[in-house]
Amino acid sequence: MAEEEKNYIDVPDQGLFFVPLGGVGEIGMNFYLYACDGSWIAVDCGVGFAGDRFPGIDMLMPDPAFAEKIAPKLKGMIVTHAHEDHIGAVASFWPLLRCPVFVSAFAAEMLEARLDESGLLGRVDIHLFEPGDLLELFPFEIESVAMNHSIPESCSLLIKTPYGALFHTGDWRFDAAPVIGAPVDLKTIKTLKNEKIMALIGDSTNVFVEGDIPSETDVKEALTELFADYKDRRLIVTCFASNVGRIESIAEAAEKNGRTVCLLGRSLWRVEGAGRAAGYFRGINVFLTEEEAAECDPGSILYLCTGCQGEPKAALSNISYGTGPVKPVKGDVVVFSSRVIPGNEQAIANIQNRFISKGIEIVTGKDALVHVSGHCGRRDMEKLYTFLKPKTAVPVHGEAAHLYEHADLARACGVQNAVILKDGDVLRLDTSVPEIIGEVQTGILARDRKQIIPLNAGILKQRRRMIDDGTVVATVVLDKTGNLVGDVQFSAVGLIAANDPVLSQMNAAVQLELSGLSGADRRENDQAVFDTVKAAVRHVVMETHGRRPLVDVHLVRI
Amino acid sequence: MAEEEKNYIDVPDQGLFFVPLGGVGEIGMNFYLYACDGSWIAVDCGVGFAGDRFPGIDMLMPDPAFAEKIAPKLKGMIVTHAHEDHIGAVASFWPLLRCPVFVSAFAAEMLEARLDESGLLGRVDIHLFEPGDLLELFPFEIESVAMNHSIPESCSLLIKTPYGALFHTGDWRFDAAPVIGAPVDLKTIKTLKNEKIMALIGDSTNVFVEGDIPSETDVKEALTELFADYKDRRLIVTCFASNVGRIESIAEAAEKNGRTVCLLGRSLWRVEGAGRAAGYFRGINVFLTEEEAAECDPGSILYLCTGCQGEPKAALSNISYGTGPVKPVKGDVVVFSSRVIPGNEQAIANIQNRFISKGIEIVTGKDALVHVSGHCGRRDMEKLYTFLKPKTAVPVHGEAAHLYEHADLARACGVQNAVILKDGDVLRLDTSVPEIIGEVQTGILARDRKQIIPLNAGILKQRRRMIDDGTVVATVVLDKTGNLVGDVQFSAVGLIAANDPVLSQMNAAVQLELSGLSGADRRENDQAVFDTVKAAVRHVVMETHGRRPLVDVHLVRI
Repeated sequence: MAEEEKNYIDVPDQGLFFVPLGGVGEIGMNFYLYACDGSWIAVDCGVGFAGDRFPGIDMLMPDPAFAEKIAPKLKGMIVTHAHEDHIGAVASFWPLLRCPVFVSAFAAEMLEARLDESGLLGRVDIHLFEPGDLLELFPFEIESVAMNHSIPESCSLLIKTPYGALFHTGDWRFDAAPVIGAPVDLKTIKTLKNEKIMALIGDSTNVFVEGDIPSETDVKEALTELFADYKDRRLIVTCFASNVGRIESIAEAAEKNGRTVCLLGRSLWRVEGAGRAAGYFRGINVFLTEEEAAECDPGSILYLCTGCQGEPKAALSNISYGTGPVKPVKGDVVVFSSRVIPGNEQAIANIQNRFISKGIEIVTGKDALVHVSGHCGRRDMEKLYTFLKPKTAVPVHGEAAHLYEHADLARACGVQNAVILKDGDVLRLDTSVPEIIGEVQTGILARDRKQIIPLNAGILKQRRRMIDDGTVVATVVLDKTGNLVGDVQFSAVGLIAANDPVLSQMNAAVQLELSGLSGADRRENDQAVFDTVKAAVRHVVMETHGRRPLVDVHLVRI
Repeated sequence: MAEEEKNYIDVPDQGLFFVPLGGVGEIGMNFYLYACDGSWIAVDCGVGFAGDRFPGIDMLMPDPAFAEKIAPKLKGMIVTHAHEDHIGAVASFWPLLRCPVFVSAFAAEMLEARLDESGLLGRVDIHLFEPGDLLELFPFEIESVAMNHSIPESCSLLIKTPYGALFHTGDWRFDAAPVIGAPVDLKTIKTLKNEKIMALIGDSTNVFVEGDIPSETDVKEALTELFADYKDRRLIVTCFASNVGRIESIAEAAEKNGRTVCLLGRSLWRVEGAGRAAGYFRGINVFLTEEEAAECDPGSILYLCTGCQGEPKAALSNISYGTGPVKPVKGDVVVFSSRVIPGNEQAIANIQNRFISKGIEIVTGKDALVHVSGHCGRRDMEKLYTFLKPKTAVPVHGEAAHLYEHADLARACGVQNAVILKDGDVLRLDTSVPEIIGEVQTGILARDRKQIIPLNAGILKQRRRMIDDGTVVATVVLDKTGNLVGDVQFSAVGLIAANDPVLSQMNAAVQLELSGLSGADRRENDQAVFDTVKAAVRHVVMETHGRRPLVDVHLVRI
């Protein structure tokens, strides 16, 4: 895509504005700003998964440049829950923003572990902000409203301003029988309509899901029945590590069937630690380590593993290969208590196929109720619009397809305005009809291990070319008369094997082509030497390997 | 995975054997061998798609080593149809096998285009072998049985031998109203049971698909109705390029709605050429080129594009970005007359989201009957087993999950034996119960542009490490006294930008560490110099970039 010259605006000092920096147009990287009369608050600060698009990159982040610009006016950041796509960038961006952070107890535990890794523990001003709490960040007054989701203590925010109230849903669903927390208090929700909600800024993830979504307790019961069917066989179960409620469900279902749970995988243990510190896993047996489980017989144990998305280095993948201490054997049963995140289909299928070809049974959501989503489907969304009667709907947390569908749904529910935004848009909310008044700087950054770089960084382009075209580095030594000294040294990592005869072909080609340069050029004209060497190398590699490599020349003049 | 030492067997000179070299345990790379009393035939010779697993690799192929070994006894190769996963490796492997190739007229056209690209046209002994034909390749007698599939002239093979008959299905379904060819002749199929079929070697692709699969004519009618709903709007349709019947359906539906079809994308034009040469597209208007279509108004044209799987350089992707001559505008309609191949979900969603955010409507199989599969679902499979009553089922054309499910289905249909194989297994078929007697060499090769290399080749491992860890090439010049001359030159393509100050840090680190070596080591011990430079570079890059790169040192001694 051509890079356009953007005209960024300044957000006016009067009025009420919503500025998403991430999360609109993608699922992930949630990072939202609200401005009221020159004061700002941030809601969530998450990362996104890079998938396979960017070689060597596993995490993406929204560009924080605009947030940094308004940082002096930022009264605080509120995190709605502890999923990585809502909390994962706090440690990276806090040094730029330096505002107080408001989170629930469980999210605080998760966040502190991350801050510790970044050497920021104790420096960030973390405040507990629990469902039901009220928070004054003048001129904002924010109420945390408990919602159900696939992680503890998820909340929506009722954001009151002098211009009126907003409802920011965060990730949510109505669960009549959750395993953790209480069902959403519908009575309270219904009274919120008296606040005359101007706009609902809401989760679009499951807008294509029709019908009722079963409760987490239904899953627990289904798991209990399922495990009973596999007495004496070894059970290997995988789920999302952050789903504390599911871990409890699995553990309770296991215990009812006389099994103890052994956790496999670092992120499960991390969540276990944060969960216990925040008061979860009460009344559940202590989880076993791998070593402890090795002593038990197959029918008395349940292995709960990371890797439900087919992650190549997670516990489940190791088991499927037989490279870990838990060796898969015929008769074992592997249960995927999880969904397939789009893009991971083949990775998951590969693991399942490895198990199946060892005579191991696979159980997924197609076979039994072993998973439910933590996001609202259409029915819940319709209910919420009916309860709250907002004047405007602003779909977030979705790709374009989700946002457009959510807007249609909101209109069908009688919502007057449904506004489709993109990241960086500035939406004015204090006018009778909300209006996009311009945009601010936004973009996507990549976490390249210790560095954070723009997605259009030269090294990422080079990395792609390295794969598509290959690279060759040639070291050429020329003496004072411009004659080549010794052989040219080549490195062509990932392109040409060290014993490939093409290397001597390249050497001969460089010699030949350099001999075609004038003596003066060879003695003094570095650029001419570079160009000649590059052309000779490329020509040979194109002929033999069908690739046109990036060529770097190290010229040594002696 | 640990590499095991394999004990390969020789296939006995007496008896009847089935040896799959590719296609069992994966969807793709179909390459099957049959041996009878020391004479061999091959069925299909296809490629597989590499997905994202192997950087820089787009095509995979079965290892032909064993086929090469028995090539002198290979009487011929029969290709069941022209899909790449059945025909795509013929041009690569023919020089090793040099046997006659038997194909239908359409497949011959497609194959000849490929042979032409490989400089083999005219050298390969191609024979037409049409549905209904009988072929004698002693001791085999092979009958081609017309089946329905998503490409013209797909056939099953009835393979008669002195030991009894085998039925190799190829890719197939029963379509009561195909657009190309006739419905499968069930009367003929039913009489085949008199052949006393020992084994059915059959397609497993859609073994998880329940219920009746609509016919291709149903799709044509649905498309005709659909197009009528979008009068005056520009229609952009995408489908699999090789699906000649679908192209005809789309063209007929377009013509009934007063539209002419413009083809966009090389592979569609290639199929159009092969199709016309083999007698298809009769009675359909000549397809327009992009230039001709540009003259027409939106309501009179239908753009038929490549790229239904989200391929980044195909026509549909170009349109979605607006980088091609066809600029997408609000009101356009994009129809995906195709399915989603697992692994391509996100790439397709990305294209759809780009269109949606431009106000363009997307129509997929979820909205209308715009696609049907060319593979048999469970019902067709059950019918075939009932008609043919084979003694043994050998599921092929599937991942492990498909093969196991197919075996269960066959047993439920009363088939005595269902045998799960893996590529390379040698299945003896002339015994009362088929038996795996051992295995022959097999494996997967990668097409790395002009080279064909094993999947465990060093350069592929390096290519992965280049992405995960990065590479640095350092050129170090030492004089006779062992002193460093000038600055160290670095190339760290895809890892460190040319202006990154870390380069001078690396230079300083190398200088410092080399000065710690003894003068003798610096003067004479190349290995000590290499190790010192590598360690210094790795240390700096680990600190600054969090990666531990591959380091190559070019040492110049002057």
